[in-house]
Amino acid sequence: MMYSKMVENAQKPSEQRLFLMKGKDVLSAYQFNKEELSVVIDTAAYYEKALVEKRRLRNMEGKIMAALFYEPSTRTRLSFETAMHRLGGSVITIAESLKYQTSSMSKGESLHDSITVVDQYVDVLVVRSPINGSAEIAANAAENPVINAGAGAGQHPTQALLDVYTILKEKGTLEGLTVTLLGDLKYGRTVHSLVDFLLLYGCDLIFVSPKELVMPEDITNKLCNKGIKIKETDNLLEAVKDTDVLYVTRIQKERFATVKEYESVKNSYIVDDTIVKKSKEGMLILHPLPRVNEIAVSVDKYPGAAYFRQAANGVPIRMALLSLTTGNVL
Amino acid sequence: MMYSKMVENAQKPSEQRLFLMKGKDVLSAYQFNKEELSVVIDTAAYYEKALVEKRRLRNMEGKIMAALFYEPSTRTRLSFETAMHRLGGSVITIAESLKYQTSSMSKGESLHDSITVVDQYVDVLVVRSPINGSAEIAANAAENPVINAGAGAGQHPTQALLDVYTILKEKGTLEGLTVTLLGDLKYGRTVHSLVDFLLLYGCDLIFVSPKELVMPEDITNKLCNKGIKIKETDNLLEAVKDTDVLYVTRIQKERFATVKEYESVKNSYIVDDTIVKKSKEGMLILHPLPRVNEIAVSVDKYPGAAYFRQAANGVPIRMALLSLTTGNVL
Amino acid sequence: MMYSKMVENAQKPSEQRLFLMKGKDVLSAYQFNKEELSVVIDTAAYYEKALVEKRRLRNMEGKIMAALFYEPSTRTRLSFETAMHRLGGSVITIAESLKYQTSSMSKGESLHDSITVVDQYVDVLVVRSPINGSAEIAANAAENPVINAGAGAGQHPTQALLDVYTILKEKGTLEGLTVTLLGDLKYGRTVHSLVDFLLLYGCDLIFVSPKELVMPEDITNKLCNKGIKIKETDNLLEAVKDTDVLYVTRIQKERFATVKEYESVKNSYIVDDTIVKKSKEGMLILHPLPRVNEIAVSVDKYPGAAYFRQAANGVPIRMALLSLTTGNVL
Repeated sequence: MMYSKMVENAQKPSEQRLFLMKGKDVLSAYQFNKEELSVVIDTAAYYEKALVEKRRLRNMEGKIMAALFYEPSTRTRLSFETAMHRLGGSVITIAESLKYQTSSMSKGESLHDSITVVDQYVDVLVVRSPINGSAEIAANAAENPVINAGAGAGQHPTQALLDVYTILKEKGTLEGLTVTLLGDLKYGRTVHSLVDFLLLYGCDLIFVSPKELVMPEDITNKLCNKGIKIKETDNLLEAVKDTDVLYVTRIQKERFATVKEYESVKNSYIVDDTIVKKSKEGMLILHPLPRVNEIAVSVDKYPGAAYFRQAANGVPIRMALLSLTTGNVL
Repeated sequence: MMYSKMVENAQKPSEQRLFLMKGKDVLSAYQFNKEELSVVIDTAAYYEKALVEKRRLRNMEGKIMAALFYEPSTRTRLSFETAMHRLGGSVITIAESLKYQTSSMSKGESLHDSITVVDQYVDVLVVRSPINGSAEIAANAAENPVINAGAGAGQHPTQALLDVYTILKEKGTLEGLTVTLLGDLKYGRTVHSLVDFLLLYGCDLIFVSPKELVMPEDITNKLCNKGIKIKETDNLLEAVKDTDVLYVTRIQKERFATVKEYESVKNSYIVDDTIVKKSKEGMLILHPLPRVNEIAVSVDKYPGAAYFRQAANGVPIRMALLSLTTGNVL
Repeated sequence: MMYSKMVENAQKPSEQRLFLMKGKDVLSAYQFNKEELSVVIDTAAYYEKALVEKRRLRNMEGKIMAALFYEPSTRTRLSFETAMHRLGGSVITIAESLKYQTSSMSKGESLHDSITVVDQYVDVLVVRSPINGSAEIAANAAENPVINAGAGAGQHPTQALLDVYTILKEKGTLEGLTVTLLGDLKYGRTVHSLVDFLLLYGCDLIFVSPKELVMPEDITNKLCNKGIKIKETDNLLEAVKDTDVLYVTRIQKERFATVKEYESVKNSYIVDDTIVKKSKEGMLILHPLPRVNEIAVSVDKYPGAAYFRQAANGVPIRMALLSLTTGNVL
């Protein structure tokens, strides 16, 4: 784990700030104002400092988190479970794909009923589902806080929070940076959630994608209305020359009408040593993972290749969310 | 969680009563005498009081429960796991349907061998299986207490215990009540286990079901021999006029010879606002869940609709069973 | 749990010995020298004594173990999880067969990437995989200790450690014993790992198998070079007359060219009452389990039938490995 200045200097937030999110659900990135975002970041940094210093935390001892993963997502599930254990809490888990579904939902039970029951067992619920709107249904059914761990093609706010946290840790600030989003900007829920945070900081944005997968117009319009400077291109090599943070996502074959169309574009969006060499000094490379071939393995040794450090940041961010929403603060 | 008088006034049972079930297995409802039943109820109420008051319990710290679910049952598994965590204990879990079986049983190992091994790892075993008699095989193999979490078409004693607990909490007593069992009375293991407890209290019973799914004769005979007043009918609307507690179960299409036969009866056994309006003042509605369509969602807002509160009662009941059978008492 | 002299007399190893394995991976049996082997055995005995005396251990409180089982192995997984819980630690788990794979590896992620991420969440990783060399890839990717819980047709060092521990507990020594390995000696990874330990003690060995499944020549050559006395035979009845420890493994139908060939040999390698009656006084019978039919159930009552006690020994051995490699010692 990298021990950045931000973590080294982390202070315990004030009582008042620590209770700002108590009782709230975490359903989307756009629900956050800058004050809430900053208390999550500051609390996460404070927790990471404790982890680095191997201090044991116990503020969720005796509490239980339900990890309800109706869609596979090993990394996200394990990092939430780790976060809860690092706070001293316990975990109960459903981890099954709908395809091999064995839960009571396979007997025809509604998500609302399932959540209503589990809500009475635990203190906080983490819900992942392939269906849009599931997190909202869950939040409606539950009295305890619900955290959206990814729902369909919609939001994935905890990923976006750890993305922002990573940039702040690695770059020290977001002000004045140029952030380039690369890959599938049309369907990628992580980039959509991330954009909601970036506009709070007023970064300049570059969108690099094949024309089939450009950022949806409602999002570019929203950004323009907020006065964000946007550039759209399909030329990665040009873009990296001005990029401070390159956020890479996977381009899936299935998104194209024909295999031929996919084959014709795929190599233009792979980050390899050539791209890195042409990039702006100190460019940070992020990726929500899993990575297939969109970043060459040889890039891993580059100091700016931060995607594995980024994954590790999921733990302190989720520790912050679990404890802030339930009011089990440090 | 509802805070009833029973919970509010809960007292710690005497030492002597707390050790009444030490070292015993929980395999069926009919194994219980009234003294054992009452110590489970009283201990559960005492634990629920602790949960409501957010007092941490630690009497099973350092102990391990094995949740061996060879058949899917998310609700039952999660409530047992929650119960163990709320007592400070740890959990190891097998959760796989035989269909997607990946355990050593798929290699041809007998249940007896599997249980003999896991028994040596843990302090208490919870076993769920699609096969009748599995709980008895497990109890035979294990030196530690075995709790039957549902075995085939047979018993489901912990469900029946939480059903009784719910009636006592909500109604204050079982004496003199008329309990109506509705739905699939032929194959429903929960109603068979429940009846074993109700006859200890001498309630009046009404059985409402299509003629294809009436209560088996050996059970009605047993009840008659114990002097229990029984009425059998297929008319739900008539029955609810005299009902204090309505216990609803699902009627499965597969139980009928033809889809036509199923279609012809299914609507007669749905609990909806009309049924509720015609029912006796204060009628309690229970259901072991998952509910599909046998209770209309509009009924959920009715104060007597207790099925979600009933599900929550699984936690204190299972806390009581885990600690009483292992002798790790409060 | 049997309380042998070895366990009764167990002493806490010296500080120096306790840190001998700190930071090391456990990938194979052949990596161990006799000094390391003895510290694992002594630490396991010390832990078993604590378990028997019901003393709570807390030396891994606040620590997390990742159980990454990319191949089903219920017994091994549950005993590692039990070991971690008995030390006060927490567990995060992936348990899925590649066949019903739902993890990010199914999206095409490399094992190296998966391990790199999870390594940052936890303090120690336990990896099981159907693919040879997986444990080495994992150890390469992780900074924390990696323990091989079985990889392909290769090594299974923790099984071999608990095998040796069982013989020492039951027989008091390994010096001067004749150990007979029975069954599939060609493909059985447990016997291959076990042989690596036995040669450290200089036992005499008898190999009993059908000719199709004899011990590979590179292993017999290695043993001869070390001066180990070996006898190879297909006659079980003869072998048991001189055997102190009989290690039974399963002969799988799939290993034979035709079903007929399998049928012609299978009954010659079943351990039943006749075999036991002809065996050397006090012969110990071991089996890595699961047992299908290669040991008759009637043999279970024989005092030398130690295979269930052997399985229980997995817990203290794995407790020793988890704490010694991470330096979280008693």
